[in-house]
Amino acid sequence: MSHKREMAERLAWVAVDWGSSNLRAWAMADDGQVLARGHSDKGMLALTADAYETTLLEVIGDWLPATGRVNVLVCGMAGARQGWREAAYVDVPTRLDELGRGAVQPPVADKRLRVYLLPGLSQRQGPHGGDFDVMRGEETQLAGLVASDTTLSGHICLPGTHSKWACLEDGVVSGFTTYLTGELYQLLASHSVLKHSMGRDDLSDPKCRQAFTTAVRESRDAPQAFSRHLFGLRAADLLDTRLPSGDARRALLAARLSGLAIGLELAGLVGVPGEGLAAGESVTLIGNAALCSRYALALDALGHPAQRVDAEAAVLAGLGLARRFLDTSNSATMNRNP
Amino acid sequence: MSHKREMAERLAWVAVDWGSSNLRAWAMADDGQVLARGHSDKGMLALTADAYETTLLEVIGDWLPATGRVNVLVCGMAGARQGWREAAYVDVPTRLDELGRGAVQPPVADKRLRVYLLPGLSQRQGPHGGDFDVMRGEETQLAGLVASDTTLSGHICLPGTHSKWACLEDGVVSGFTTYLTGELYQLLASHSVLKHSMGRDDLSDPKCRQAFTTAVRESRDAPQAFSRHLFGLRAADLLDTRLPSGDARRALLAARLSGLAIGLELAGLVGVPGEGLAAGESVTLIGNAALCSRYALALDALGHPAQRVDAEAAVLAGLGLARRFLDTSNSATMNRNP
Repeated sequence: MSHKREMAERLAWVAVDWGSSNLRAWAMADDGQVLARGHSDKGMLALTADAYETTLLEVIGDWLPATGRVNVLVCGMAGARQGWREAAYVDVPTRLDELGRGAVQPPVADKRLRVYLLPGLSQRQGPHGGDFDVMRGEETQLAGLVASDTTLSGHICLPGTHSKWACLEDGVVSGFTTYLTGELYQLLASHSVLKHSMGRDDLSDPKCRQAFTTAVRESRDAPQAFSRHLFGLRAADLLDTRLPSGDARRALLAARLSGLAIGLELAGLVGVPGEGLAAGESVTLIGNAALCSRYALALDALGHPAQRVDAEAAVLAGLGLARRFLDTSNSATMNRNP
Repeated sequence: MSHKREMAERLAWVAVDWGSSNLRAWAMADDGQVLARGHSDKGMLALTADAYETTLLEVIGDWLPATGRVNVLVCGMAGARQGWREAAYVDVPTRLDELGRGAVQPPVADKRLRVYLLPGLSQRQGPHGGDFDVMRGEETQLAGLVASDTTLSGHICLPGTHSKWACLEDGVVSGFTTYLTGELYQLLASHSVLKHSMGRDDLSDPKCRQAFTTAVRESRDAPQAFSRHLFGLRAADLLDTRLPSGDARRALLAARLSGLAIGLELAGLVGVPGEGLAAGESVTLIGNAALCSRYALALDALGHPAQRVDAEAAVLAGLGLARRFLDTSNSATMNRNP
């Protein structure tokens, strides 16, 4: 069977994760198989509302059949106020299997498309009082977890430029918190006085790993020393005769900076009575392998086991869950691929 | 008396504070009076070693007499390894009235000049073990304090891009700590996702002041929440309906970010048993009026009174102290202005 013919016969819907800086799309069969993948670097920040449909068609146009509408389920920043069309935030606490209820349909000219933009989550009153927070995109990955375990409870961490920690209680998101950790690391490593001392770390190297985990524990034990520890990296580069030279030196210092930043994030979650992680509690990480490994190493240093769920698998499961909700609630007006 | 004639008759020495990004110079009379001021934006980062003398003469050349050498005392980054000539760091603990002992003379072609570059301070083993730290320039301001009170004890704070806290014991610098606070604030306010929410704050406005001091206390009470509080600024901008709009909104959020950053710095100094500031202890601030006011407000919110010393007065007193040391130890080879 040719690829084109298989696509025409098997395409059931299209999954899209459309973020600030790029979009990823998947041609999906009804059984969950991925028939094709597409990608564009035209994210929300690069687009005006009237440019979304053209951009989408550039990526998925070849997948579409000549006749009949295909449902396209989109999560992420395309549904932000400054995106294609706003899908208003759903407030926590909320169940994740009903994200589809908040979906909106932007106007489309191409008769082969029916697009649903899924909402993000907002928190207007957090467990600490007035902890406003928002997410767009990550909630769909969380929904992917719940898709396979509708009564899931526990802490889920989605590392990234802005890492998210969600607390699930029996399938309900009870609260969540965003940390600026990744952006903080990037700004400090690339744009501060520390840039002269930074290289690429490699956490498979035992010395880098030790520098990283030591820094994680230091931030956990003394988060108030974070700003002092930052300049200490520069001073150590100038004065510490025990450091190796060259790339090995810059790798160790980068590992230490990464550990300090991730450790500061974890300091707010670990060992704080009455909130956060219980001693020894396991954490589920959703994200790319390298970043999740880094977080798993940090969590392990503080006595927390972690298991990883692949981000692509999670987002596809989450979009699939929303599709089933829309199918059920809206079947009279939906055209499936014939 | 003409200005030129007064200069010729009264110039006793030249004071220079030569930092990374600019230099400031003062024509000094023997009694400490400032006869003239000069300025250049050619700091250490813009200069190679062979360009310092020319740059200096552009600023102070007109002050120099036709005959006789004038001593030029220089503090700051001109004495760094990548500066004019390295004046090696003096390790703490050290007395400040002997900074002149570590001064070095760079080679100069102009026979009217004798230049002394003062050293900075280094800390190779801090009170917390392995707290490497360095300063270049601020030590001379500290010396200026000691010049008028040779047995001074207490905590001195020099706010800035990299704020410095020094502990003086009976005129001796026993240890010091650098915080990346100012640079952290600038990076977050200008280059992170928070830039969309930031404006200029005005701490004379009661609402800004309250947002600032509340944030200082929050960072002191929960430094582990710093990274979460950062993203909370963005989320509050999106969701908090109690915030005013426009410039007033951005001012409040900027005041809060400033308070979080300075509060994180102070968290490491306040209320930590066995180190840092004792309850209610007074702090001496050296620096420009606006930044010192900001720190004084933060310290006041945590129960610490503060008094300010003008930065220019401090650096001139410190360079004057070094000059007297060099005069005493080296008078046979020094030519004073006739």
